[in-house]
Amino acid sequence: MIKPNISQALAGIKHSGILKLVTKGAAKKTGQSPGTLVHVGEKKVEEVTISVIDYDASNCSEKQVQAVEDCFPYRDTRTVTWINVNGLHDTELISKIGSHFGLHPLVLEDIVHTGQRPKMEDFESYVFIVLKMLYYSELDREVKAEQVGLILIGNVVISFQEAAGDVFGPVRERIRKARGRIRKQGADYLLYALMDAVVDGYFVILEKIGEKIEVIEDVLMSDPPPEALHAIHALRGEAIFLRKSVWPLREVINDLESGDQALITEPVTIYFRDIYDHTIQVVETIETYRDLVSGMHDMYLSAISNKMNEIMKVLTIIATIFIPLTFIAGIYGMNFEHMPELHWRWSYPTLWAVLVTASAVMFVYFKNKKWL
Amino acid sequence: MIKPNISQALAGIKHSGILKLVTKGAAKKTGQSPGTLVHVGEKKVEEVTISVIDYDASNCSEKQVQAVEDCFPYRDTRTVTWINVNGLHDTELISKIGSHFGLHPLVLEDIVHTGQRPKMEDFESYVFIVLKMLYYSELDREVKAEQVGLILIGNVVISFQEAAGDVFGPVRERIRKARGRIRKQGADYLLYALMDAVVDGYFVILEKIGEKIEVIEDVLMSDPPPEALHAIHALRGEAIFLRKSVWPLREVINDLESGDQALITEPVTIYFRDIYDHTIQVVETIETYRDLVSGMHDMYLSAISNKMNEIMKVLTIIATIFIPLTFIAGIYGMNFEHMPELHWRWSYPTLWAVLVTASAVMFVYFKNKKWL
Amino acid sequence: MIKPNISQALAGIKHSGILKLVTKGAAKKTGQSPGTLVHVGEKKVEEVTISVIDYDASNCSEKQVQAVEDCFPYRDTRTVTWINVNGLHDTELISKIGSHFGLHPLVLEDIVHTGQRPKMEDFESYVFIVLKMLYYSELDREVKAEQVGLILIGNVVISFQEAAGDVFGPVRERIRKARGRIRKQGADYLLYALMDAVVDGYFVILEKIGEKIEVIEDVLMSDPPPEALHAIHALRGEAIFLRKSVWPLREVINDLESGDQALITEPVTIYFRDIYDHTIQVVETIETYRDLVSGMHDMYLSAISNKMNEIMKVLTIIATIFIPLTFIAGIYGMNFEHMPELHWRWSYPTLWAVLVTASAVMFVYFKNKKWL
Amino acid sequence: MIKPNISQALAGIKHSGILKLVTKGAAKKTGQSPGTLVHVGEKKVEEVTISVIDYDASNCSEKQVQAVEDCFPYRDTRTVTWINVNGLHDTELISKIGSHFGLHPLVLEDIVHTGQRPKMEDFESYVFIVLKMLYYSELDREVKAEQVGLILIGNVVISFQEAAGDVFGPVRERIRKARGRIRKQGADYLLYALMDAVVDGYFVILEKIGEKIEVIEDVLMSDPPPEALHAIHALRGEAIFLRKSVWPLREVINDLESGDQALITEPVTIYFRDIYDHTIQVVETIETYRDLVSGMHDMYLSAISNKMNEIMKVLTIIATIFIPLTFIAGIYGMNFEHMPELHWRWSYPTLWAVLVTASAVMFVYFKNKKWL
Amino acid sequence: MIKPNISQALAGIKHSGILKLVTKGAAKKTGQSPGTLVHVGEKKVEEVTISVIDYDASNCSEKQVQAVEDCFPYRDTRTVTWINVNGLHDTELISKIGSHFGLHPLVLEDIVHTGQRPKMEDFESYVFIVLKMLYYSELDREVKAEQVGLILIGNVVISFQEAAGDVFGPVRERIRKARGRIRKQGADYLLYALMDAVVDGYFVILEKIGEKIEVIEDVLMSDPPPEALHAIHALRGEAIFLRKSVWPLREVINDLESGDQALITEPVTIYFRDIYDHTIQVVETIETYRDLVSGMHDMYLSAISNKMNEIMKVLTIIATIFIPLTFIAGIYGMNFEHMPELHWRWSYPTLWAVLVTASAVMFVYFKNKKWL
Repeated sequence: MIKPNISQALAGIKHSGILKLVTKGAAKKTGQSPGTLVHVGEKKVEEVTISVIDYDASNCSEKQVQAVEDCFPYRDTRTVTWINVNGLHDTELISKIGSHFGLHPLVLEDIVHTGQRPKMEDFESYVFIVLKMLYYSELDREVKAEQVGLILIGNVVISFQEAAGDVFGPVRERIRKARGRIRKQGADYLLYALMDAVVDGYFVILEKIGEKIEVIEDVLMSDPPPEALHAIHALRGEAIFLRKSVWPLREVINDLESGDQALITEPVTIYFRDIYDHTIQVVETIETYRDLVSGMHDMYLSAISNKMNEIMKVLTIIATIFIPLTFIAGIYGMNFEHMPELHWRWSYPTLWAVLVTASAVMFVYFKNKKWL
Repeated sequence: MIKPNISQALAGIKHSGILKLVTKGAAKKTGQSPGTLVHVGEKKVEEVTISVIDYDASNCSEKQVQAVEDCFPYRDTRTVTWINVNGLHDTELISKIGSHFGLHPLVLEDIVHTGQRPKMEDFESYVFIVLKMLYYSELDREVKAEQVGLILIGNVVISFQEAAGDVFGPVRERIRKARGRIRKQGADYLLYALMDAVVDGYFVILEKIGEKIEVIEDVLMSDPPPEALHAIHALRGEAIFLRKSVWPLREVINDLESGDQALITEPVTIYFRDIYDHTIQVVETIETYRDLVSGMHDMYLSAISNKMNEIMKVLTIIATIFIPLTFIAGIYGMNFEHMPELHWRWSYPTLWAVLVTASAVMFVYFKNKKWL
Repeated sequence: MIKPNISQALAGIKHSGILKLVTKGAAKKTGQSPGTLVHVGEKKVEEVTISVIDYDASNCSEKQVQAVEDCFPYRDTRTVTWINVNGLHDTELISKIGSHFGLHPLVLEDIVHTGQRPKMEDFESYVFIVLKMLYYSELDREVKAEQVGLILIGNVVISFQEAAGDVFGPVRERIRKARGRIRKQGADYLLYALMDAVVDGYFVILEKIGEKIEVIEDVLMSDPPPEALHAIHALRGEAIFLRKSVWPLREVINDLESGDQALITEPVTIYFRDIYDHTIQVVETIETYRDLVSGMHDMYLSAISNKMNEIMKVLTIIATIFIPLTFIAGIYGMNFEHMPELHWRWSYPTLWAVLVTASAVMFVYFKNKKWL
Repeated sequence: MIKPNISQALAGIKHSGILKLVTKGAAKKTGQSPGTLVHVGEKKVEEVTISVIDYDASNCSEKQVQAVEDCFPYRDTRTVTWINVNGLHDTELISKIGSHFGLHPLVLEDIVHTGQRPKMEDFESYVFIVLKMLYYSELDREVKAEQVGLILIGNVVISFQEAAGDVFGPVRERIRKARGRIRKQGADYLLYALMDAVVDGYFVILEKIGEKIEVIEDVLMSDPPPEALHAIHALRGEAIFLRKSVWPLREVINDLESGDQALITEPVTIYFRDIYDHTIQVVETIETYRDLVSGMHDMYLSAISNKMNEIMKVLTIIATIFIPLTFIAGIYGMNFEHMPELHWRWSYPTLWAVLVTASAVMFVYFKNKKWL
Repeated sequence: MIKPNISQALAGIKHSGILKLVTKGAAKKTGQSPGTLVHVGEKKVEEVTISVIDYDASNCSEKQVQAVEDCFPYRDTRTVTWINVNGLHDTELISKIGSHFGLHPLVLEDIVHTGQRPKMEDFESYVFIVLKMLYYSELDREVKAEQVGLILIGNVVISFQEAAGDVFGPVRERIRKARGRIRKQGADYLLYALMDAVVDGYFVILEKIGEKIEVIEDVLMSDPPPEALHAIHALRGEAIFLRKSVWPLREVINDLESGDQALITEPVTIYFRDIYDHTIQVVETIETYRDLVSGMHDMYLSAISNKMNEIMKVLTIIATIFIPLTFIAGIYGMNFEHMPELHWRWSYPTLWAVLVTASAVMFVYFKNKKWL
């Protein structure tokens, strides 16, 4: 692990970004009729693209679909089909998919409104899942989130992404190369594979944040600059955001794993249990981070106080040694006519002796107090 | 988003307002017989007005009712009727409605006593719901709350507002224009639409508070004035108040969505699940705000400490450099007869050299300590 | 609301009082056989008095009973009877009541031992309830608690108070004047009315504490004196005490409202649900107070730190301006023979010019730093 | 209540004692086969003594048993028998009791290993209970804990104590004197009486700690010495320890009271409910103490900060008044040839006037700032 | 107990170590097909070794197995067999075991991926358990964790360790020597014995951390160095890590003890209940540590503030005494022509008298303020 340098680490965390993630687009839809398809969120791709992979144990075909209608025939094949939609702003297209597959208007609304919290909804004939895909933008040095909608309906899995991310790349690769058991399994296993890919991404984020924590802890061990405070605050914000994104997922996957879902076959539930374990691990690590970050603020406060003590010690030592000496010098700077000491032969050397002795005494005193 | 300037942001939060909201009118009714109709709360409109909208898929009639008795015939029609009462202080009128529709005295009491917490009560033949409608008063720059009572009884929805707010305007519009599916659905869908309108309003409030948080966070990043502390405290109060208003709503909507309510038809429960999701989102965002606000106070404390360190450094540097120099000057200001240095030719320039060197050494020392 | 002045507000909260309430008489009974009647608590009235109200829809008789035996005949009438016992120290009297009505020895023990937490015990043939009646003593400016024991047995309600308080006055009045529905209802409604009276009293306390909070918040906004700290601590204690008194009540009333109690008829449970709502509201307000009070301590700490910063700024400005100037004056106070400046014509005015310039530079510097 | 003086109160709390209680003997048994009888804990008595009380409503015999076998015959009598074992280090003796009464090896292990947390285990034919008996050692001025093991088997109750404490004294007395209903009841009531005696002891501890809290609160109100901090920390430790000892008891007694235990007859469960109430009260009071103690630390910190402010004020006032004056004096101590003021007639008195005026202005300034 | 000295204690806690434990290898597997065997974690032994112990009440044979196939025959014997695998990096070997015993691919994956949280999975024909074995490395002076996988399948227990640790040594010894009841019991008792050995190890860790806490508390009582802060922070990290390792174990053992596991016979569940009690005790002690550690940070902050007060007192006393004196000396160092005092006979001694008196007054003042 190559540690990013401190200023980079500290710069990489912008507080406002977090806040934006937290309240993203929440209020944009106010007053609209429910089920109205309005895309809420950033438009991340120019054009919506649809790709279809259709496979069974022996065959696998893959194509980019031009018109949305081209992917409808796959609905009734016996092979497993994965329809992936990149881009959510073409509400007409999504509405067509919805009406063809018989999806509830609120489901479509949730797909295009990117401010959802992770959830699962079970409509007997299909299952709808919303997830947060997290990735770390090296450019902005911050965590970014993208909403992923997943629908399992018969043999078909439809996935909706805000942009063509690479998180599903390895799954696609495994299907193509028939690696692992994915080709031998049904659409429920495909759903699992996609969710697993999203959850695996969380561990990368955790590691990134772990690195930041380590950098800041190192800074706190020595002399923390004021920016460390902002970094800690931002880190706290990131942990809050992560928690918000991942926490509800526990419930979602727990529901899938419970065996109550008709669409999830029994041998696949054990795989969902595996994702469940991972999610718990992510959640626990986030909690650990929160604990560590809150401890870091205490450390920062103590570090400042320690520094203040250092400063005050310097001041006090200097002042305590020199103020009395200056007073003595002041005494013999007075212009009284009758000051016998002024005329003694050895006054001046004696005075120096006194001054040096006093300083030495003070020095020993501070040494004993461990201030030096 | 145009950021309000800081002093505005800080001024917009009055602590006492929060406290008033929290304990509003709680003790006014002590000692009264239960079921006594006493209006508790501010009188927000001069005259109570009643409007009635009666509709089915094909027709829609709307009118302002003069006498309360005019809206009673709607009770037995097969069309959906929405009776909206603006203003709660005319207890006689409300008592008439109550007796005509067969409402329990405690329900009427709760309607006119505006200090209720959100709740749902199921009286077999009708459902009674209390909500808090929140809006942001740009005038007072603070969050205000209004109590909304909703009753679903047969085909009729009766809503009670403290004042003629515009939060139900879009719903009325949708009914008039037959937009969405509202005209094709029953009274339970109307109930949903009204509650949805109230919950949508929460997101606007969240955004407003989010803006305030951002302003204060920016202030904290640089040099926070003492008012920032009051702003943080007031913000904390607002978050507490919001939480208190929204938190119980989860349970209310959960009950409505559960399918146990005979008056809510099955296809509409899915819409209540949608509000439920929104409520959870609001609650989680409020929790996030609380976390952020509590972190802000830590930041403020640290910022003050940092500032103190800055101040102390200045003092210490000045004192540490000049106090020893002043001492040396004091030494040669003494009037001893026998001070050989006073008579040497190069004493004075030598002394200056010593002083300058000492200062330079100090300067380097502080530079190394990163105090400069 | 007339605001009490600050010193009054601060004086009105004595910490030790709280502590006494918290641990009141807990250890006095150690080592005694269970069921032994020992009055634990302050003796608040000289003589135990018993009053009986007997009523049905049409008649109502009321009398003070001399001998405890006089109230036994009411047990078997068909009218509703309320026996109110003021004063708990006459254990013999209470033991007589107990044996006549067939109460369990532990119930009697709990009645006379005033250190109980609120609870409900259901002994099939009767229900026993312990409540805390709270009132605000204007004399001592603090919250006081009194234990109330309630027994519902057949048509009879027996209430045990530590002293003749006026909290049940309005209920008595309503019975006498046949106001509301109390005269038409059974003993379970009477039980409700008494408990409602106690819970209504909590709102008065909440308002009192709310006022104190407001006073202290105002103090904290400006320059808080050290006493504010004690007031905050005491307030925290009061909130803790309140919470301890009210929190268990939720469960008690929930049990009564649940419909599992044979002695509570179904139409009356809805009234208990109403008290339940009130109790929840009280508990939530207490939690809000706790949050606000804990925030107030943070404010206090910050206010002290701000003040310290102010003090340090004054010191630093003065020292930073004058210490260097004094050094310069010290230089020309030296007695070296060969100091050419001493003999120049314009030395002195030049020096003044330098001093003034230096001060001005410092002044501008501090102005820029916003220390002035 | 005679208040112990402060230094006593502060001295009476040793932190290491708490820590020892918390981790007592935990690791001593590592690597041993389960069920091996190894006494873990301090050996508190020289010789193990066994006393037997055998009674029914009419008779009561009591004796000290020499050989353990002497108490075996009581097992099959129809009278109630209480076998009390003082001292746990004679593992052979305890193993004999175990095999005679048919106890599980793990039960015996738990009896002699004094690091157990309170628990109840139900082995159909007998019930095994572990409790912590707490007492306050006036000698060491700290809370001490002793483990008590109780076994209810048929008509026999066997109690195991680490040392012959006096906590069971009153119970023994009641049996001897046939006070209360103990002689008329079965072994389950005896079990209750013993547990009640232990729980009653907690209230004494609570009162002791309450007194300490009061002493420290008084100290904090004025000028808290650094030792107060240690006292607060130790108090916190004591509260933690108490909580750890009492908290699990709730569950234990709840299980006993639930009516699921075949060995506890129905009329006795109501007595266990009484202990349950007491336990809840103890737990709540401990929580209250924890809240108060954590508030005390905040108070301490604020008190220190207030004191610091006082100190800084003194420094700042002195420095602000005298540093400028000293500068002016320094000016006229300079040796320039051309300083016209030096030669004026009224310079010196004028200067004094200036100095006094400046001081007065400063004084008024600080007075206005309320620093004086 | 020999106390390690402070610097050792403080040095022994490295923060980064904790962090590494927390996020250990989490992200290494991203993008891989589930069930792929990839060893994640440090390679702690060179060569994987397998030892087999096969025993019943009368016989016991033990051998080191060269090829993994050699341990397969034991599967079908009626004796109890314990197969212990040291080292996890030989995935081929583990995969062979997996396919022979019919283990699920995800189980094998979890065995070799050392970043698991403790869990139990019940696959009807076998039970899979993951534990964290903790030990204290005296070399690095920190807590280390090792993952232990346990499989109970028929009469066979297979254990997977990262390295040949000695924690299972005593169990092996007990089997060899036929100590306790282990030889007379089945494979479920062996599973218990192994888990018990792991849990026993936690107590050793707790004692080590307890010692560290005691050392740091002692340091905090006197004058804490800045390193104490880091030690506290690291201790907090260790407590967090421990909690994370042990907390999930409660659930695991609770499941085993519940009696729902077909493979655990009823007489053995009581032993699992014993481990359950131990686990609760460990968890509670960890919580206690967390409380103590968080209190320690408060103590540290207060100790720093106290020290600051000490420093400021010294400064203030010196400055307050000498600054006024220096001013007076400065006055009489002025060169005005007309200063009558300069020429008086007794001016100088009088001045000294004034100075000494002023100092004495100050001294008394500070004495009264308890600053001296």
